[in-house]
Amino acid sequence: MKRKIYLNMQPLPKARQIFTDRFKQYITDTETIASREAAGRVTAGPVTARLSAPSFHAAAMDGLAVRAEDSFGAADDSPITLDIAGRQARFINTGHPMPDDRNAVIMIEHVLLSEDQSTGIIRTAVYPWQNVRKVGEDIVATELLFPSNHLITPPDVAALLTAGCPEVAVRKKPKITIIPTGTELVDLRDTLNPPAGKTIESNSAVLSALADQAGAEVMVTPIIADDYENIKKHLMKAVQSDADVVVINAGSSAGSADYTVQIIGELGEVLVHGVTIMPGKPTILGVINNKPVIGNPGYPVSAIISFEQFVLPLLARMQGMQPRDPVIAHALLARDLPSKGGIEEFRRMITGRIGDHLVTVPLKKGAGAITTLTRANSILRIPASSEGETRGSNVELELLRPRQQIENTILCTGSHDLCLDLLHDFLKKSSPYPLASTHVGSLGGILAIRDNMTHIAGSHLLDPKTGDYNRSYINRYLKDRDVALITLVYRQQGFMVQPGNPKNIRSVADLLRDDVNFINRQAGSGTRVLLDHELEKADLDPDAINGYDAEEYTHMAVAVSVLSGKTDVGLGILAAARALGLDFVPVTEERYDLIIPREFLKLASIRKVLTIIETEEFKQAVEAKGGYSTRETGNRVL
Amino acid sequence: MKRKIYLNMQPLPKARQIFTDRFKQYITDTETIASREAAGRVTAGPVTARLSAPSFHAAAMDGLAVRAEDSFGAADDSPITLDIAGRQARFINTGHPMPDDRNAVIMIEHVLLSEDQSTGIIRTAVYPWQNVRKVGEDIVATELLFPSNHLITPPDVAALLTAGCPEVAVRKKPKITIIPTGTELVDLRDTLNPPAGKTIESNSAVLSALADQAGAEVMVTPIIADDYENIKKHLMKAVQSDADVVVINAGSSAGSADYTVQIIGELGEVLVHGVTIMPGKPTILGVINNKPVIGNPGYPVSAIISFEQFVLPLLARMQGMQPRDPVIAHALLARDLPSKGGIEEFRRMITGRIGDHLVTVPLKKGAGAITTLTRANSILRIPASSEGETRGSNVELELLRPRQQIENTILCTGSHDLCLDLLHDFLKKSSPYPLASTHVGSLGGILAIRDNMTHIAGSHLLDPKTGDYNRSYINRYLKDRDVALITLVYRQQGFMVQPGNPKNIRSVADLLRDDVNFINRQAGSGTRVLLDHELEKADLDPDAINGYDAEEYTHMAVAVSVLSGKTDVGLGILAAARALGLDFVPVTEERYDLIIPREFLKLASIRKVLTIIETEEFKQAVEAKGGYSTRETGNRVL
Repeated sequence: MKRKIYLNMQPLPKARQIFTDRFKQYITDTETIASREAAGRVTAGPVTARLSAPSFHAAAMDGLAVRAEDSFGAADDSPITLDIAGRQARFINTGHPMPDDRNAVIMIEHVLLSEDQSTGIIRTAVYPWQNVRKVGEDIVATELLFPSNHLITPPDVAALLTAGCPEVAVRKKPKITIIPTGTELVDLRDTLNPPAGKTIESNSAVLSALADQAGAEVMVTPIIADDYENIKKHLMKAVQSDADVVVINAGSSAGSADYTVQIIGELGEVLVHGVTIMPGKPTILGVINNKPVIGNPGYPVSAIISFEQFVLPLLARMQGMQPRDPVIAHALLARDLPSKGGIEEFRRMITGRIGDHLVTVPLKKGAGAITTLTRANSILRIPASSEGETRGSNVELELLRPRQQIENTILCTGSHDLCLDLLHDFLKKSSPYPLASTHVGSLGGILAIRDNMTHIAGSHLLDPKTGDYNRSYINRYLKDRDVALITLVYRQQGFMVQPGNPKNIRSVADLLRDDVNFINRQAGSGTRVLLDHELEKADLDPDAINGYDAEEYTHMAVAVSVLSGKTDVGLGILAAARALGLDFVPVTEERYDLIIPREFLKLASIRKVLTIIETEEFKQAVEAKGGYSTRETGNRVL
Repeated sequence: MKRKIYLNMQPLPKARQIFTDRFKQYITDTETIASREAAGRVTAGPVTARLSAPSFHAAAMDGLAVRAEDSFGAADDSPITLDIAGRQARFINTGHPMPDDRNAVIMIEHVLLSEDQSTGIIRTAVYPWQNVRKVGEDIVATELLFPSNHLITPPDVAALLTAGCPEVAVRKKPKITIIPTGTELVDLRDTLNPPAGKTIESNSAVLSALADQAGAEVMVTPIIADDYENIKKHLMKAVQSDADVVVINAGSSAGSADYTVQIIGELGEVLVHGVTIMPGKPTILGVINNKPVIGNPGYPVSAIISFEQFVLPLLARMQGMQPRDPVIAHALLARDLPSKGGIEEFRRMITGRIGDHLVTVPLKKGAGAITTLTRANSILRIPASSEGETRGSNVELELLRPRQQIENTILCTGSHDLCLDLLHDFLKKSSPYPLASTHVGSLGGILAIRDNMTHIAGSHLLDPKTGDYNRSYINRYLKDRDVALITLVYRQQGFMVQPGNPKNIRSVADLLRDDVNFINRQAGSGTRVLLDHELEKADLDPDAINGYDAEEYTHMAVAVSVLSGKTDVGLGILAAARALGLDFVPVTEERYDLIIPREFLKLASIRKVLTIIETEEFKQAVEAKGGYSTRETGNRVL
């Protein structure tokens, strides 16, 4: 096995400059297309008007075409009668040509017509050329309609046609070929249920969609196996085709099969190998036969960020467009965000408005976590020179969604429950308010409320002394905040066991059996509190449980442990068991509440939340999930 | 001829509410499409993951798969040797499944391999599950991927595939039929040079492009003549087709041929007839067979604004999308903007950044002037309750272009010259700085410089006493500003005469002949100053000229007067004569300069302007236009 060595590692600005300089003159050819189809395309040269508009003096109003002089002196106390029968004044419709020697239109609303319409009385004069659109008033033949490199908008299409230009010369769409490589990859179109060890190839689809939105014509080859000669053959074929740009996308398995850089070097030139960004470091920028060839990293988030940084700006420039700068906003950072120095880090964030300022919450790292990119509405770039940002600092974000949507986002944190997803769905169905939830545990949510970093915290903290939920924690941690406590659901916690419950686990007492291996949740989690409470009630000794000290951090991780056969049982919610096809033995029911600062209850977004959870439709959807009761949903505990 | 009577005139918010309420439940059906093709579409319901990702514990790094416990204690001063030959540690590539009973990966970069790769020495321990992506770490089967009404982005496509969803249920694209009507309209595809009195139909093209960008499928019928039964027949046919929305677009000739409202009332119901907006007032909102039918005004700007206000939000809602709010910015208004009370006015504006603030300049009014919409980069809405805005006030704008492009805009005002269009083209070819020019005459430009409302003013003001240009005016009006004066071009002024010069006009003296009718420019224009100077030099009496008192306001209007045969000759620039095919007799040459506040010379945009005008390429393009000399182009007069 070889270590990964980057031949020519560069920081992002330098890598972009090397690439841009090399392909400065690399623009697509010109093609002439119908103006009607030209919206969204870019002019290949200056466009001039062939005809004037209007092409004749035209009435701008419905009324009487007159000589302006014939109306002079008309006033309320000195009306003038115009002779229509004798054609001194003539009816005219908007857009119609003015008769010769008529130079103004009197609006029909300002004329008192005789019964037979042979005369008309006016009480207002018109000045010469009033209510007339003169030749060339809008467009003068030969004048510049659009400069070079102009992105044609829908109204521009009307201007082209009006100026007599049925066709327009535009830049051809750049052609891009995307080659997915990786022996471990399968195409979901070939196999709906990939065998163990195989990964569904998805990068070619997302890169295609990005390139398509950037105005390119996209070709995707079948998946190429990790074989030096095979990759070389297909890469050469793509370069020799009519493709303008070739992207070779590694499988997430790089390692010993990472041939791309060698092959590009052999067939052409490697300009940059490795960029000091994370994700996106294994990017290769090269050139073969004067065509740009990009080796794109395999992890989905890396692939997308690398593509956005290098390929999209290239596609824009090839069409004569300025690469679009991101929309910037500033926000308060909800958590500490340490970062490795020496590398520019792109962190995906969820941002929303709390009071007067935006607040931004980091999603988890991980180049493989595509859902962090689909859930993020903003990006925080931590420069290579920084070792991170501290909680509460004012950071600069790039927005991935329209500002309005970010302003409308409801921030929710704390413990997670599936009913929040349901709530998000209901909100999207009937309002402009998306719910963005992050999971930091119940206590983490309460602290976020304290620090004014969230609208809503989900919490299920049992007070073993009182048997009540959340209230005593609020009293302790949120003394200085006036909060509402609203019940969302009751939910079953139970044992997740292997299908068929082969160990026949029925109660907490079974956990103490010698033939049972247990997997626990971490100390401080709501579920751990619950287990300890159940053990205490039954007067059982935790230390007698095999595996009491083995901890996992999520319901799902517990379920995975059971599924793999390493352990026999863990405590968690029904949904986690169902997700992995495990059986579920109910143990107890717990209350899951929403904590909301009272000042937010008047927000339209929060009002919508409270309205939704009280609807029968929502409650039925919750109950249908199984393991839930809505008997107190919407109840104001505080 | 009938007066136009609006049956149910409404202000914009009320009209929108009536329309929205009526079609609240009007959404498109669901269709299932390939996830790979789904970017830009909207989910028809919640989408849940079918498979988990990863679907197995996978290596997150290239390296050695180990039991974490086997690495415990490894440190710089206590290296541990792992047995690779005996499979205590096993080589693994990123993305590949972890062997059973291995729970961590040691990065290959942290391993010192023996020559034969049978052992590896490590000096750092790994914790359990380090460098491993666990089952479901990214996506858990059954979890919510996307809620209803979610606009699918390119990364979302990757998430869909990764979660094992090859298809996704989305809202069908709404189908819209657009019916252009108007006896005076011709299709540019049928006749490249429309006969006099006919107007090129362009609205169907711009509305199509707008609807297409809004995600609709568009059908455009041929142009329908203004005939009651004919329109009724075609409208009914469209309503009975599979169209979800029907738009009937009047010709610009409304008046006696305005049947639409009657027909909608006869076949269905008119909800709103007339909206108190300008442009866009003649909008009709109706319903036939429970389908929305919109009567769209005929003038291009009215048609577009009405379509944007009513049809685009409808198309968005039909697909489960929130209509997009405009991007807002504030700017200082460069000129007084009076407005008629009682009607909400949409004014097209050009906006750019001057120093610390945005400055916005109104383009001319006129519902027929499509070029005001293609040139505008922003819209100012003057509410019905207002009688306008005053110069210097801070107004709210809706931006039509990305903010970045507006910030980059170079504002230019004053007298117009065709070389500014050329400059605009050169800037677009090689920079991100568009040049936006408005025309207020040379003196108007100087006053805009004084008030800090422009970057550049174009001026050709002759001082008859000195024979010099612009300098004495700057001394008089710009005492308090430090400005640069830079020559752009010398240009020919001359007589525009009918083709073949039938009156044989050779010099100013010919203007005094009895058989010659002259058309003049307005007092105060640079061209009028020039004529008076020429007459004085030749010692000729202006009062002896037929038509000296007849004034036009533009070069083009003078040319039109000559072309129509009403007059024989006028003074103007070569380009205006060429535009209408007139002959041109050169009279004199004048200097056209750019006035630029010296502080702006350091801006990248202005530096680019000054660089361009000094290039040979630019000068050649200017000279090629005819009537120009670039012998002093770029010369710093001040």
